[in-house]
Amino acid sequence: MNEAILRTLLEQVRSGELAVDGAVDRLRLMPLRDLGEAVLDTHRELRRGQPEVIYCAEKTVAQVRMIFAALLEGDSDILATRVPPAMAEALMADYPQIRHNPLARTLVIQRRERTLTETTIAIVTAGASDQSVAEEAAETARVFGNRTERINDVGVAGLHRLLARLDAIRSARVLIVVAGMEGALASVVAGLTARPVIAVPTSVGYGANFHGLSALLGMLTSCAGGVGVVNIDNGFGAACLASMINQL
Amino acid sequence: MNEAILRTLLEQVRSGELAVDGAVDRLRLMPLRDLGEAVLDTHRELRRGQPEVIYCAEKTVAQVRMIFAALLEGDSDILATRVPPAMAEALMADYPQIRHNPLARTLVIQRRERTLTETTIAIVTAGASDQSVAEEAAETARVFGNRTERINDVGVAGLHRLLARLDAIRSARVLIVVAGMEGALASVVAGLTARPVIAVPTSVGYGANFHGLSALLGMLTSCAGGVGVVNIDNGFGAACLASMINQL
Amino acid sequence: MNEAILRTLLEQVRSGELAVDGAVDRLRLMPLRDLGEAVLDTHRELRRGQPEVIYCAEKTVAQVRMIFAALLEGDSDILATRVPPAMAEALMADYPQIRHNPLARTLVIQRRERTLTETTIAIVTAGASDQSVAEEAAETARVFGNRTERINDVGVAGLHRLLARLDAIRSARVLIVVAGMEGALASVVAGLTARPVIAVPTSVGYGANFHGLSALLGMLTSCAGGVGVVNIDNGFGAACLASMINQL
Amino acid sequence: MNEAILRTLLEQVRSGELAVDGAVDRLRLMPLRDLGEAVLDTHRELRRGQPEVIYCAEKTVAQVRMIFAALLEGDSDILATRVPPAMAEALMADYPQIRHNPLARTLVIQRRERTLTETTIAIVTAGASDQSVAEEAAETARVFGNRTERINDVGVAGLHRLLARLDAIRSARVLIVVAGMEGALASVVAGLTARPVIAVPTSVGYGANFHGLSALLGMLTSCAGGVGVVNIDNGFGAACLASMINQL
Amino acid sequence: MNEAILRTLLEQVRSGELAVDGAVDRLRLMPLRDLGEAVLDTHRELRRGQPEVIYCAEKTVAQVRMIFAALLEGDSDILATRVPPAMAEALMADYPQIRHNPLARTLVIQRRERTLTETTIAIVTAGASDQSVAEEAAETARVFGNRTERINDVGVAGLHRLLARLDAIRSARVLIVVAGMEGALASVVAGLTARPVIAVPTSVGYGANFHGLSALLGMLTSCAGGVGVVNIDNGFGAACLASMINQL
Amino acid sequence: MNEAILRTLLEQVRSGELAVDGAVDRLRLMPLRDLGEAVLDTHRELRRGQPEVIYCAEKTVAQVRMIFAALLEGDSDILATRVPPAMAEALMADYPQIRHNPLARTLVIQRRERTLTETTIAIVTAGASDQSVAEEAAETARVFGNRTERINDVGVAGLHRLLARLDAIRSARVLIVVAGMEGALASVVAGLTARPVIAVPTSVGYGANFHGLSALLGMLTSCAGGVGVVNIDNGFGAACLASMINQL
Amino acid sequence: MNEAILRTLLEQVRSGELAVDGAVDRLRLMPLRDLGEAVLDTHRELRRGQPEVIYCAEKTVAQVRMIFAALLEGDSDILATRVPPAMAEALMADYPQIRHNPLARTLVIQRRERTLTETTIAIVTAGASDQSVAEEAAETARVFGNRTERINDVGVAGLHRLLARLDAIRSARVLIVVAGMEGALASVVAGLTARPVIAVPTSVGYGANFHGLSALLGMLTSCAGGVGVVNIDNGFGAACLASMINQL
Amino acid sequence: MNEAILRTLLEQVRSGELAVDGAVDRLRLMPLRDLGEAVLDTHRELRRGQPEVIYCAEKTVAQVRMIFAALLEGDSDILATRVPPAMAEALMADYPQIRHNPLARTLVIQRRERTLTETTIAIVTAGASDQSVAEEAAETARVFGNRTERINDVGVAGLHRLLARLDAIRSARVLIVVAGMEGALASVVAGLTARPVIAVPTSVGYGANFHGLSALLGMLTSCAGGVGVVNIDNGFGAACLASMINQL
Repeated sequence: MNEAILRTLLEQVRSGELAVDGAVDRLRLMPLRDLGEAVLDTHRELRRGQPEVIYCAEKTVAQVRMIFAALLEGDSDILATRVPPAMAEALMADYPQIRHNPLARTLVIQRRERTLTETTIAIVTAGASDQSVAEEAAETARVFGNRTERINDVGVAGLHRLLARLDAIRSARVLIVVAGMEGALASVVAGLTARPVIAVPTSVGYGANFHGLSALLGMLTSCAGGVGVVNIDNGFGAACLASMINQL
Repeated sequence: MNEAILRTLLEQVRSGELAVDGAVDRLRLMPLRDLGEAVLDTHRELRRGQPEVIYCAEKTVAQVRMIFAALLEGDSDILATRVPPAMAEALMADYPQIRHNPLARTLVIQRRERTLTETTIAIVTAGASDQSVAEEAAETARVFGNRTERINDVGVAGLHRLLARLDAIRSARVLIVVAGMEGALASVVAGLTARPVIAVPTSVGYGANFHGLSALLGMLTSCAGGVGVVNIDNGFGAACLASMINQL
Repeated sequence: MNEAILRTLLEQVRSGELAVDGAVDRLRLMPLRDLGEAVLDTHRELRRGQPEVIYCAEKTVAQVRMIFAALLEGDSDILATRVPPAMAEALMADYPQIRHNPLARTLVIQRRERTLTETTIAIVTAGASDQSVAEEAAETARVFGNRTERINDVGVAGLHRLLARLDAIRSARVLIVVAGMEGALASVVAGLTARPVIAVPTSVGYGANFHGLSALLGMLTSCAGGVGVVNIDNGFGAACLASMINQL
Repeated sequence: MNEAILRTLLEQVRSGELAVDGAVDRLRLMPLRDLGEAVLDTHRELRRGQPEVIYCAEKTVAQVRMIFAALLEGDSDILATRVPPAMAEALMADYPQIRHNPLARTLVIQRRERTLTETTIAIVTAGASDQSVAEEAAETARVFGNRTERINDVGVAGLHRLLARLDAIRSARVLIVVAGMEGALASVVAGLTARPVIAVPTSVGYGANFHGLSALLGMLTSCAGGVGVVNIDNGFGAACLASMINQL
Repeated sequence: MNEAILRTLLEQVRSGELAVDGAVDRLRLMPLRDLGEAVLDTHRELRRGQPEVIYCAEKTVAQVRMIFAALLEGDSDILATRVPPAMAEALMADYPQIRHNPLARTLVIQRRERTLTETTIAIVTAGASDQSVAEEAAETARVFGNRTERINDVGVAGLHRLLARLDAIRSARVLIVVAGMEGALASVVAGLTARPVIAVPTSVGYGANFHGLSALLGMLTSCAGGVGVVNIDNGFGAACLASMINQL
Repeated sequence: MNEAILRTLLEQVRSGELAVDGAVDRLRLMPLRDLGEAVLDTHRELRRGQPEVIYCAEKTVAQVRMIFAALLEGDSDILATRVPPAMAEALMADYPQIRHNPLARTLVIQRRERTLTETTIAIVTAGASDQSVAEEAAETARVFGNRTERINDVGVAGLHRLLARLDAIRSARVLIVVAGMEGALASVVAGLTARPVIAVPTSVGYGANFHGLSALLGMLTSCAGGVGVVNIDNGFGAACLASMINQL
Repeated sequence: MNEAILRTLLEQVRSGELAVDGAVDRLRLMPLRDLGEAVLDTHRELRRGQPEVIYCAEKTVAQVRMIFAALLEGDSDILATRVPPAMAEALMADYPQIRHNPLARTLVIQRRERTLTETTIAIVTAGASDQSVAEEAAETARVFGNRTERINDVGVAGLHRLLARLDAIRSARVLIVVAGMEGALASVVAGLTARPVIAVPTSVGYGANFHGLSALLGMLTSCAGGVGVVNIDNGFGAACLASMINQL
Repeated sequence: MNEAILRTLLEQVRSGELAVDGAVDRLRLMPLRDLGEAVLDTHRELRRGQPEVIYCAEKTVAQVRMIFAALLEGDSDILATRVPPAMAEALMADYPQIRHNPLARTLVIQRRERTLTETTIAIVTAGASDQSVAEEAAETARVFGNRTERINDVGVAGLHRLLARLDAIRSARVLIVVAGMEGALASVVAGLTARPVIAVPTSVGYGANFHGLSALLGMLTSCAGGVGVVNIDNGFGAACLASMINQL
């Protein structure tokens, strides 16, 4: 459409219908929106083939239903995150092809064949209570086309459990470390590998945990180099970043 | 320059030297910067005639000197804020035409005749210790072409002082209220006028003031409608906003 | 009433019934309330014609019912904000003429003809989750007599959406920017216009959002001049201030 | 009882039954509790005649029932604070003589005749939403034997309402100021009187109020002298302190 | 002066020079300041005889000099607080009659004979490091005409030191408790007396003290009734309030 | 098992079946886990005989059931903490031998005879509302084999209650002090004994308590030496540490 | 002295000089101080032989000089902490026998022969920057009579350094872990030993370290049991507690 | 060395000199350090060839001198960060081959030839005041062998400057975004590229910036996916992580 306008204008210049000065003026006044989208689309282009993502936490079932319907007109995969149980049920009734991961609180509709990456994103958790966030990360990473490996329950108070998984840690191309409380696992893992570590503080804990603040600050001030931190409980964001890195 | 490129391209289209398709391609690939600036200049245009502003707090004398030299090649007025005493002295030695306001920590080079607005920005302070921030606001407002009126030392613990200035308060088109400690003055003034109030919390105080946090939170939760808050000690920002409003 | 007392007193002075000294004494002793209201009424006078506003968040249905009944004895418009669903239903049963906006959580009784302003308040939101706060702002702005324009879902992570609405942004007389998470939209919008921007941080988000703190701090420290900030989620307050500015 | 032991010991000394050395030893070893209570009782003595107070917030109905039963064996008045509705109902079924104040969330059993003080504690509130805390203060003050006066809804955004109550403010011997949001009322009231002001921040509000933090910090940094602050929402504590002062 | 205007007006009414309606209008428009001051002066009257106070923390020597000169034209006593050493020296050179208390950081010029109160304000400190704040409180209390008693170094970690001063604690009419770190002394003292306790948290300490926050929160949440808290390190404010109470 | 592998390998070396070089290689490649556990087992060895502990706060009934089943295959005692009522009921239905302490929110299955220590852990509480945390500490201490003594309701606002229990305080080998609000009890108790004090801040309170922050900061900045602090409400952790100390 | 008074009184009772009733009265009125000190001295008795400690951070050289002079009249050892360099020099000039540890910022005068404990306090640090705090702990522990072992620079980002010191870690009777940034070392060490761990967060770091807050919160929420935390940078307090435990 | 011990042991087993049981025992007791280092060395191996890094912020000149001397015995490159000016001068006097970057506060000794990566790390800054942190990141990235590109002064308040550098932004393999105040630049840049973005909040600003907190929270809650955050002002850490990613 924009292109049509542009083409018409240029043809008018060529035909002499429009003077050069007039064309300069019109091009300068041409709404940025149109040019902007043209240019910026190269960006969207890059995303083509990636799943569409719906963050459901502050939406109603009706809103999410509407978005699903719209997205299903396209052909990309769909990932919905932070889906409350009731919303999940409602959507599964609508779309039997949905894959629901209740622990991760995700819904997935996979419509394309996807070859997983050769390289692996390792998802490391400190304790059983971090599983929900790790599962969100794992589900996201897989939907984005990455091979994943889970290394669970290797909190630093029992180092032998962590050291026992050293091979798995070292063979990953990028690692997501999910930990609550003092979040020390990120530092320890980063010290054991030369690969990028994405740290996800979780809100698991109580008292001086202050809803994840202790793990967040701990991870940000990690004494080990090479740790990037995402928001508290943000398994999805960690997987986004890890996927970008893994697919470089 | 951009225009030159654009003009050349269009002339090539007109002359047939360049096909329409090729021109469309080149226009799409033409660095956004050039088009962008063309379009966005309408914005900068609006600013034309406004002083250039230099925030000096984290710059060296050498850096600021360089910026002054560059700006003086243009013809706009120049306002430098947060100028430390030593930097002020150095620049005054270079440019005798500089107006230095040590309380406001500003330097001004005024090169254009400016008719002040008919309407007034009132700058209201709670106590003597808020004068530095108020002075920065006043200097900024004047350099931006606004008539100002000062209403000083009318903290809420002595209401009669405030009520005695009611006429001045009510005759302003927009008000800047500068107050530290509990910042209550903003609420009280906003309750006495129907004009917009820009509140500037100051870091004046100690202890539970927490460097301006008490006044900041107090102003944000003001029980009076119509109060917009800027950053702690940000006299400049308050005057920017007040000037925009006053000159509507 | 006060005027009646005053008039009687003055007539007694004129008739000689009351000596000047006695009148001076009585005037000095006359309860401040009466004189106060007389004087201060010039303030209330200014508000005449403006809707009465009821903040319902911490009130019972019974209390709000009583206030509605009292206000309906006057003839001004009525705006109730932060109305919980059950309270809304109860009041709609009482007053069929109420206009309920469930997303904005407002109730309105409009009794006067109002010509909307020529100029526009633009209400810009970053994401779908900011709609409730934006809707409160929009409803308030309209009840206060302002033309409004909505610019939705133009978060800074997809700049092309924002740039596509550049015309709407630049044609507004004052802008309200509603954004959660990092609140970056306020800075970006303020950089694109020379008009006053009222920024409303929202509590949308989780983790390091800390119930709106991230957006609040981001907006207060905006690198763009001309941004005034109101309390987290305070769509009503933003519209009050924007209305004052728009109607200058 | 302690006295009995002591008396016996001394009589044994007098009768020669117990040597002085042995008595010294026994007195030194005599559990501190007994001597301690003897000495410290002068303190408790001072409290004699004051109501017993039960803070019910973190107790079960069963626990509170047990405490009531125990206290009713004495003859002092009883004040229960922070009583949830269900607990109130349960206790009222047990003790028909209970006076329940649902807004204050208090239960009172008054068993003594009490002459109220001549002087008055004024309880001043900023808005309707502060009533619950103010009511707790008022109920407490009355049960402790003080005359009280309520000055309601005089928030600083409408100064004329406050000034209209100037006489009442100035005739109180001590004032309790209850205010949420920016808590500015405490400063303004303290500026209008030379009497002690006890400030109670309330958690009324949202966003940057941070559950009463804004009012708390505002009151602590009040620019007016003579303001003592108690915990957020602590109407009871404010009344305790005000009662001590009023009864000096 | 105001009275002169008022008298003239009323005489014009009596003489018929001014119609009643005109007088009503003029009275309504008469600047509030004049009426306001007339009324509000009753307040200032109450303060007559009290020392004037200058808070020097954010003022220059020149500013404080000017204020001293102005105040010395009156005849009230003068108290300057938070006086830095250099400022103190400068003013002592000007006014040999100044009393300088370097620990309290106060300057006093006493010009009236003052009979101290019969009753006593006890000033209790936890440790040697709280002396500066306590000294400010003591100096203020004395200048305001109160008898004071110091109870030093009775921190709760050595209860016997505190209990040894029980008589002094119980014979005070009002107590100021100055304590840093955990601020526990306020609770313990309040439990030992039935008199009002004004608690001053100090910024003494390090680490989790967070510049006085630990003591501030501790005092606000004191488990003992009858504790009013002032700002961190605010010895002056505590003495103001204590003086008001002591002189009731 | 690891030992079996190791032994086989060494026997192969002895028999010549495996060359020294090959054995070195295999030993170096032998999963760290196995060597690690071998070495680290000396640690686990120390724990042998100690109960297994399950933190139930963020687990489902199904998860906890599974863990119980697994642990019951061993023969150690089992302690479950933070057990919600419904989970407790479900498990008690499964295992009639469970001892449920609803106040402590613990479940215990005791399968070994345990002689309690001679020495005592004293558990001291400030008020009735701290009982739940204290009970968790007591239950834990007992399951870990310690004699305990409870010293309840000795908050510092009534010192005589505390002093009356001086003997009990001084005869403990280690003390756990549980207190909310200002947490002053830890300092006072530490001043009365020369034994280690483990302080547990509780979240009991409201307002400036900030969910236990006031007690936490107060205990960390205690003016008494010899106080170690654990997380807010962490009765279990305090008892772990106290048990380690008591059993040295 | 107290005993003398007591003895006299009892002898008067025996001789009949004083009636039993009179003696009861006098005993009840006998200043608590005297009895109190008598009783409480048993506590001080326990401390006999321990060094006297002076916290110098907020004291002047003159004050510390006076305290030294007073303490030297006794015969106990003296430990001064947080001694600024200039103060250290001044005191070393006075007392050549002083041992100055500039890294620990301590001064020691040792006057008694002390046999060190058989058992060891291990002091473990994460990095070179934690040495000053660790040194304060070590100096304190030694002056209190404990054998110490230093395990330096074993931060968790290089686990092999820590594991290499496993024997030293496991042979200590109690451990002090000093770490800044994320403070993870405390959790890891606690997981490697069954002995009590005293954790000292340090203010080493910048940014999200927030002056030690990150390490403090991390240590408080440690996922390993048996960790007691002291104030940020409080090496002295950690050693006090460790010494109490080590000498049980 | 470890291998030698191991080999000897195994040879003794083969020769029968050592029984299998004895070898098992010795292997189990063999200090973990030796085995540990053997295993963990694979990790250090990975780092071989990387520069050694010294964080100088909390070290003395003497300490850093010693570390330099030690490192120069090896042959790796050396990077010193956070070097104060005086320390830089001292070391440059010692080692003329040092490259000093005063803005970055780094010292570098480069001893190996290094081919820079083909791909580029883009370092994007919001304003002139962020240059120091960006320079630290750039210096670090280069020393670690990466090609870098600087995109300066493209703060979001002037979008056209940012859009003008779109090509550079999109051609980077990984981006470091350095921004203070509201930190919005990270979100905007992440929305313009599909590459990983490492966000560095800076402490540039004042007031509600709270030493970098505003930018930190803003970046953590970024509405754009694929953003990893490091500590405030941590240019070095960002470059470490970016280098790991760039060299995957």
